Amino acid sequence: MPIRALVWGENVHERGNRVVAQIYPDGMHACIAAALNADPGLSATTATLQEPEHGLTEARLAETDVLIWWGHAAHGAVQDAVVERVCNAVWGGMGVIFLHSAHFSKPFKRLMGAPCNLTWREAGERERIWLTSRGHPIAAGLPDHFELENEEMYGEPFGVPEPMETVFVSWFQGGEVFRSGLTWRRGAGNVFYFRPGHETYPTYHDANVQRVICNAVKWAFSPAARIADPNAAPNVPVAAAPEPIVERGPRLHHDGEEGLR
Amino acid sequence: MPIRALVWGENVHERGNRVVAQIYPDGMHACIAAALNADPGLSATTATLQEPEHGLTEARLAETDVLIWWGHAAHGAVQDAVVERVCNAVWGGMGVIFLHSAHFSKPFKRLMGAPCNLTWREAGERERIWLTSRGHPIAAGLPDHFELENEEMYGEPFGVPEPMETVFVSWFQGGEVFRSGLTWRRGAGNVFYFRPGHETYPTYHDANVQRVICNAVKWAFSPAARIADPNAAPNVPVAAAPEPIVERGPRLHHDGEEGLR
Amino acid sequence: MPIRALVWGENVHERGNRVVAQIYPDGMHACIAAALNADPGLSATTATLQEPEHGLTEARLAETDVLIWWGHAAHGAVQDAVVERVCNAVWGGMGVIFLHSAHFSKPFKRLMGAPCNLTWREAGERERIWLTSRGHPIAAGLPDHFELENEEMYGEPFGVPEPMETVFVSWFQGGEVFRSGLTWRRGAGNVFYFRPGHETYPTYHDANVQRVICNAVKWAFSPAARIADPNAAPNVPVAAAPEPIVERGPRLHHDGEEGLR
Amino acid sequence: MPIRALVWGENVHERGNRVVAQIYPDGMHACIAAALNADPGLSATTATLQEPEHGLTEARLAETDVLIWWGHAAHGAVQDAVVERVCNAVWGGMGVIFLHSAHFSKPFKRLMGAPCNLTWREAGERERIWLTSRGHPIAAGLPDHFELENEEMYGEPFGVPEPMETVFVSWFQGGEVFRSGLTWRRGAGNVFYFRPGHETYPTYHDANVQRVICNAVKWAFSPAARIADPNAAPNVPVAAAPEPIVERGPRLHHDGEEGLR
Repeated sequence: MPIRALVWGENVHERGNRVVAQIYPDGMHACIAAALNADPGLSATTATLQEPEHGLTEARLAETDVLIWWGHAAHGAVQDAVVERVCNAVWGGMGVIFLHSAHFSKPFKRLMGAPCNLTWREAGERERIWLTSRGHPIAAGLPDHFELENEEMYGEPFGVPEPMETVFVSWFQGGEVFRSGLTWRRGAGNVFYFRPGHETYPTYHDANVQRVICNAVKWAFSPAARIADPNAAPNVPVAAAPEPIVERGPRLHHDGEEGLR
Repeated sequence: MPIRALVWGENVHERGNRVVAQIYPDGMHACIAAALNADPGLSATTATLQEPEHGLTEARLAETDVLIWWGHAAHGAVQDAVVERVCNAVWGGMGVIFLHSAHFSKPFKRLMGAPCNLTWREAGERERIWLTSRGHPIAAGLPDHFELENEEMYGEPFGVPEPMETVFVSWFQGGEVFRSGLTWRRGAGNVFYFRPGHETYPTYHDANVQRVICNAVKWAFSPAARIADPNAAPNVPVAAAPEPIVERGPRLHHDGEEGLR
Repeated sequence: MPIRALVWGENVHERGNRVVAQIYPDGMHACIAAALNADPGLSATTATLQEPEHGLTEARLAETDVLIWWGHAAHGAVQDAVVERVCNAVWGGMGVIFLHSAHFSKPFKRLMGAPCNLTWREAGERERIWLTSRGHPIAAGLPDHFELENEEMYGEPFGVPEPMETVFVSWFQGGEVFRSGLTWRRGAGNVFYFRPGHETYPTYHDANVQRVICNAVKWAFSPAARIADPNAAPNVPVAAAPEPIVERGPRLHHDGEEGLR
Repeated sequence: MPIRALVWGENVHERGNRVVAQIYPDGMHACIAAALNADPGLSATTATLQEPEHGLTEARLAETDVLIWWGHAAHGAVQDAVVERVCNAVWGGMGVIFLHSAHFSKPFKRLMGAPCNLTWREAGERERIWLTSRGHPIAAGLPDHFELENEEMYGEPFGVPEPMETVFVSWFQGGEVFRSGLTWRRGAGNVFYFRPGHETYPTYHDANVQRVICNAVKWAFSPAARIADPNAAPNVPVAAAPEPIVERGPRLHHDGEEGLR
């Protein structure tokens, strides 16, 4: 059974900006989903900000293996309840990939626990993406470096927690660098951030970029069953302790209670 | 100049529970602050939930090098604005130490981006804390292991992100283990979680526990000036690019604008 | 095509010690290989110290996806040239799993760059292995904890570099703890250390232990082609620089030379 | 008492190459030591390849807090016994800093357990070093980026284990990037790699480079007593177990024996 990817697009620029609409007439999410669907191991659908609950209902997330997130102009319009739902799904084992300006999206900031800030410049300059972790599955089939002739610059320092692995680092024509492919784990969920994808350039039509995203979906996928309540903090009664013990000393809690939060 | 520590106590059990009040007549925060003040390199004060803004005003945080946080019954009573203020201070370079049940406190969960859950049992059982990182400054002056005769059990899996370093792992009489001393970095701030400290036992009177907390304050301290706005994401205009470049292609943004969030 | 695992056994105790021989009449390596071969996704063979080149020729390693290593009494008898060969294969992308007393094997120490020491006690005590990373592929199908009624104790501090992930932590009846499942990456190769497996106990007949090893083989496997020379440090001549540059200043090297080592 | 730094220089190019000798008439090691000695918190001396035991006797290492290593042409001339001695000192708590071409030095490769390879080009091109970890002590007093007008290029992929922290990333005029400031911990010792420093350019006269090295010495310093035998793997007899246990099952070892290696 193919891995079920869900590409979430903010879908704002595509409808309001002629430049973006020309590059992505069906939306960036549709372009990305098409690239994923060209891989027989993947099956991708889309959801957008404008749908009820942004298209991210409990039921939808339950049948999603890996979520891909692109947003920029409307981070603030994403409902907090949906953000929490997405984070719970990640903690329970859903993979998630954040693209480009999603560095400031609510779910990414929520999962990182850090500012996620950077410097930026929109000048259509050249970006060269270098592999830093040879043999990493997210880089499968890619050369040691590849270029995007026109991209927005993102510069260090990038305000994210130290990653599990640095997979890519970008060189920019204007003189900056950026750690552009980073992995983390949050709860049982794998998280990948990938830098390229400014909406006024045809980045998601690029074969190497598409390859990275396909690879990342496979990397982020967990075959394990979703953890039902990833926040549970169960009490282990004395009688159920792995080793026999006798209770001692004063207590605050009663048997079987839920604990304080 | 000594490092300025601020011990934040929820201060609820100490006032409402006779057992806790007997062990910590002035509150757990006062006991911890006294231990810190016995170290000539440290200078500690306290703040509690009941004070206006929980005693954590901007001014107070600005003169705090390292914040120590203990909470349990009233996590939900901590105002979100104060939590955000604390996180901003951490991202800007303030050190922070979370003790015991603060694993479920709002600022810890906010900084971790993860469930921070665990299993637990209140049976006054023996805990033995083992050093896993020899020579680590947080373990300075401590033996390879030490014991607390009566403690609450916390058990794995502990739902936190993979740490920068695992400094301590605990053994429990009832058969569980727990990674009880963990470090992370968030923004420019150092973060340490230390497990022991159930309120119905005299844990914070223990010399080894006091030593760990003193060490951790020194470890978490950053002499650098606090970053004024740790969330800033400045635009770098084309004219200010480190290497001369010529702007190309279509743009979404105007010069000098703030960027989207 | 199944993943090709090679189980390397020192094969000394099995031949010289009656207790070990009764538990593992065909050797520990054969027992482990049989467990792997029961999984349709895996195909395992064996090699031992006594074979020419310890059974680890270039040709053999070239057709090995994941190497499993068990050694104890005869670490010193392993030829340095074979150790280097194994490390090169790992750096080139071969997965490797070190079991129990292989913490002091030459290839493990070589890959870790650290003492790899620990404390130990051979008393047949109970070990309880706790999962610390929920949803990790190496723990697939396993409960949050499982027990081995008789095992040798290994205690912290364990002198290894901070791992990429801590997957398991062990509790011992005699009061110690140990990080018993750890992952690293070295070059393009995935490395896993798994603690259990003292030769005088039937540990490798245990279904949970077998499951961990099967899972670890799948986790460590890299489908990428083996890197031919993982130590290559190629010169990039000025004419081949990704961006056009003009050479400046004095030089130490001549064009096309190999560089110093 | 100031931190005792020992700057080890291969001291080959300085004596045989006129360009290098003009830039560093007393050797690169002397230049670096002078910069360290300008900091009142540091006290630096030097040692070279040509001295007996390369100037790195047990006694000398015992009174060294942090060792700085520069080598290039004569890595192979460093005696293996001295390499092992240096590694033991690091594992016991001595800090160590490897500069530039020391990426291929014996002690660095030994501590990393990885190929430590990279790509390179000697063209006197511009390098711009970006901070990636705000507030990191190794970057104290430095701007977010600084430049070296003429440097050798080192390019990714850099074959080292994932670091504890990435502190700096370099941009090169010719189009490459490199993770140029990385930290690790090995045993009780802190390890830092810093990229700049090709011998035909005046890099170690640069104020920012000197500042990085001074900061790194302070960061790497451990005030704890050196661990006498960082490789010890002591047996814990049954009678000395933290919890009372009764020995069970068959044994391989006798009481008090040293264990197998």
